[in-house]
Amino acid sequence: MNSSVDWVAVDWGTSNLRAWGIDDTGGIAFAKTSPNGMGKLAREQFAGALTELLADVEGPAGRPISVLICGMAGARQGWLEAPYLQAPTDLRALLDGAVHPEMPDARFRPTILPGVCQKMAGSDNVMRGEETQLLGLAALNPGFSGVVCMPGTHSKWAQLSGTHIERFATAMTGELFEVLRTHSVLRHSLDGDLEGPGRGEGFAVGVQAGLDHPERLLGELFEVRAGSLLSGRQPDWCAGYLSGLLIGSEIGANRVWIGDAEVPLIGSAALCGLYGQALDRIGVRSRLVDATEAVLAGLKAARQFSN
Amino acid sequence: MNSSVDWVAVDWGTSNLRAWGIDDTGGIAFAKTSPNGMGKLAREQFAGALTELLADVEGPAGRPISVLICGMAGARQGWLEAPYLQAPTDLRALLDGAVHPEMPDARFRPTILPGVCQKMAGSDNVMRGEETQLLGLAALNPGFSGVVCMPGTHSKWAQLSGTHIERFATAMTGELFEVLRTHSVLRHSLDGDLEGPGRGEGFAVGVQAGLDHPERLLGELFEVRAGSLLSGRQPDWCAGYLSGLLIGSEIGANRVWIGDAEVPLIGSAALCGLYGQALDRIGVRSRLVDATEAVLAGLKAARQFSN
Repeated sequence: MNSSVDWVAVDWGTSNLRAWGIDDTGGIAFAKTSPNGMGKLAREQFAGALTELLADVEGPAGRPISVLICGMAGARQGWLEAPYLQAPTDLRALLDGAVHPEMPDARFRPTILPGVCQKMAGSDNVMRGEETQLLGLAALNPGFSGVVCMPGTHSKWAQLSGTHIERFATAMTGELFEVLRTHSVLRHSLDGDLEGPGRGEGFAVGVQAGLDHPERLLGELFEVRAGSLLSGRQPDWCAGYLSGLLIGSEIGANRVWIGDAEVPLIGSAALCGLYGQALDRIGVRSRLVDATEAVLAGLKAARQFSN
Repeated sequence: MNSSVDWVAVDWGTSNLRAWGIDDTGGIAFAKTSPNGMGKLAREQFAGALTELLADVEGPAGRPISVLICGMAGARQGWLEAPYLQAPTDLRALLDGAVHPEMPDARFRPTILPGVCQKMAGSDNVMRGEETQLLGLAALNPGFSGVVCMPGTHSKWAQLSGTHIERFATAMTGELFEVLRTHSVLRHSLDGDLEGPGRGEGFAVGVQAGLDHPERLLGELFEVRAGSLLSGRQPDWCAGYLSGLLIGSEIGANRVWIGDAEVPLIGSAALCGLYGQALDRIGVRSRLVDATEAVLAGLKAARQFSN
């Protein structure tokens, strides 16, 4: 099937490559996904991976198809490094910081958006991809000002004011769960069915412990092991406890910053649901913003603001 | 060489098996080490590993040699499970909780000391081996009362009053350093010479960040990655920062408990030196207690108190 489009929006992450064809009314003509994430590709393989994914795509007559890319394709170990914009900054400037990798297939003209960095004493930080979701949130919610949370492998928290990103933080919550589950002594307590009925109860206990005392994380982690040795805690309970402890500690540490206003959660429904439960315990409302919707709105907005 | 001894003291850890022959004056007749730690042995291999290590040892005429063992040999996945004593408890009772595994070689009569557990709401905890070092500390320092720190893969903190252990805590500090260094995104920043001259400077920055804000650990971890991407931090600096951040967070979280009295540090000189630096920054003195000296004193004391 041929797909005729005006331009192509691409979210090129570490694990996956996703592309959407945008027609001249702004509608989505197609959505394609490939496992060719940045983490699996050498520099010289990016152009081919894109051509392969878009092989059957037709663009407007007489000019190449613009392909606007956000995410890890612009990392140092990616296709072509796109230097960071430095926060605080206006995300409408994303396209001004973009780079243009060479493309043997002349049908496509790729552009990679920059990430955003932060250089403050003790708060060096970087993001790639999330800045486009934040611009999308701003475009979908004109006038929004407040704290945004993007749960994930590396959760991001950002202070947004319209299209301005004031500052941001990263928590290695999701990755810490995975490395502890897979490689630490806790793996003995997390070996089995992790999705059983005890998971919710374990989550409730862990998230409260984390919210109450985020400074105790290093100590509370071992509770997973001790709980299974002494109290017969099952793997599902232990997984819920560990997940809750980490998320609770993340939110507890940011308690003052979060304040009382509703927090948009950009991410998957399942993970955002857990963050929503934790925020609910400290009396903070939240709402889910679908990550795909946000990144698409962000890529559209990046194009638009440049014109 | 034959070694004639009164009894044999054994510290059987996860990674190593260490044995000392004790003569009838209490002196050390020999010291032997084998890589046959608990983690490498199936249940039926423990007796053979001990016989192999002690093959040339001769005991007193007419009776088998007592072999007193502390550590992971008594774990559930070890030689024979030695149920935990429950804190608060008097460590002079260790031998009362010991178990006696069967030994095909009748020249030896092994005894495995129990560990200590703690069952409190939200503070389930276990130790195996450290309780013997604590008893050793009590024997070497009669009348000592205070907080003891045992830095390591799983650091232990204990409130000791003479031979009584009142309560204790575990911090997965050492293991977290290892899993993050080896398996997380931080490995990209920790790939190279980790012992270079930047390590000390990175440690100083990290330990202060951890001491000041232990609740920010989940966020500060990512500083390792951002620092190498944005500020050209080298692997030695990053390793020092990560080590300092973890140790600082551990000590910062226990700040109130630690109080102002001198803290004995039981462990290796290098690691205890880092903990000593961190404690020094909060105005707390510390002193090194050699771990081998402590475990030997503990095994001797455990025998003595039972008589």
